[in-house]
Amino acid sequence: MPYLGQAAYFELAVFESLAGAVATAPNLAAREGLSAAAGRALSKHHGLIQEIRRRGGEPAVEMTPFAPALDLYRQKTTGADWHEVLLSCYLTGGLLDDFFIRLSDGLPGDVGPRIAKLLGEDAGTEVLVHELKVAINADPTLGSRLAMWGRRLVGDTLLVARSAMALSAASGTEESRIEPVFTELIAAHTRRMDGLGLTA
Amino acid sequence: MPYLGQAAYFELAVFESLAGAVATAPNLAAREGLSAAAGRALSKHHGLIQEIRRRGGEPAVEMTPFAPALDLYRQKTTGADWHEVLLSCYLTGGLLDDFFIRLSDGLPGDVGPRIAKLLGEDAGTEVLVHELKVAINADPTLGSRLAMWGRRLVGDTLLVARSAMALSAASGTEESRIEPVFTELIAAHTRRMDGLGLTA
Repeated sequence: MPYLGQAAYFELAVFESLAGAVATAPNLAAREGLSAAAGRALSKHHGLIQEIRRRGGEPAVEMTPFAPALDLYRQKTTGADWHEVLLSCYLTGGLLDDFFIRLSDGLPGDVGPRIAKLLGEDAGTEVLVHELKVAINADPTLGSRLAMWGRRLVGDTLLVARSAMALSAASGTEESRIEPVFTELIAAHTRRMDGLGLTA
Repeated sequence: MPYLGQAAYFELAVFESLAGAVATAPNLAAREGLSAAAGRALSKHHGLIQEIRRRGGEPAVEMTPFAPALDLYRQKTTGADWHEVLLSCYLTGGLLDDFFIRLSDGLPGDVGPRIAKLLGEDAGTEVLVHELKVAINADPTLGSRLAMWGRRLVGDTLLVARSAMALSAASGTEESRIEPVFTELIAAHTRRMDGLGLTA
């Protein structure tokens, strides 16, 4: 249940960040694409809520314990302008989806595979990649600023992941099992950065 | 197509307003419920986008002509605090859903019934009604302020509806056919106000 509460709250936060990016998008095509990405995060959130209800939990009650830490994390990782917000949604969303998918291995019964499938669904982030690439190509200064921002994001996100792992009943893991997971997460993160033409 | 562009842009705006209300909700249960309502508006939006694509249109292109007027309308009707925002989402969402459902009669082929079904789907607004009722019961001053706000909203919304009707190829209607539609819309609006304990 702590796993579900955390993951559900996180997806709600991703939804809110993407919804914020919709509101400030510079053109209607970007707004349109971002709203679809926000919808994907929302349906992940609702899928997790459904799992909480299925197990007799009250979603707000299960999410509440994780709200302060995740709110603080989100505040630090939101970004100062539209491109930073996009990069944050893309990188932190990708990292923590990957992370919760890996953690779902440890869930009892058939919950794990169901959640891995839910979180593994296409996040609709092509529009974020597209907008970021166009902007980076047009302005090298932006590229180097975003590369720095990406490094900061991965640092903060791995800290959150580590404490989520410690709190989650689903983990039951020792340090020796944690390291390979983090190596994988960082590798996937580096591929995302590379795809944008940014140095991780 | 003008009908679809307008309705799609309007549902996107409802989504954005509800998403904004999620971000400022005072508790997690309200955030949770509002995010579901935002998801409903988003899926109406995407259903309309799909209709635009099915007819060979580019969503952003079809929505763009209606953006300035609807943005201005939204700016005037957003509301100054959380409760005004909720009332606006509930009343303007309800009014314009009803309005576009009525207009869909005039659409060619099987598009009309499909859109009437899409827009008639549950908007998930029980949470808005619940939050508003609780707040109004706790504070009569808020009730009278919201009653005034509701009257202003219906005025602005009917103006938008009237100009949407004039612009929409789907209408082909004369003044004599418009009046009964507006009478119905206002009756439904009055029921929503009554349900909240507000004088329309």
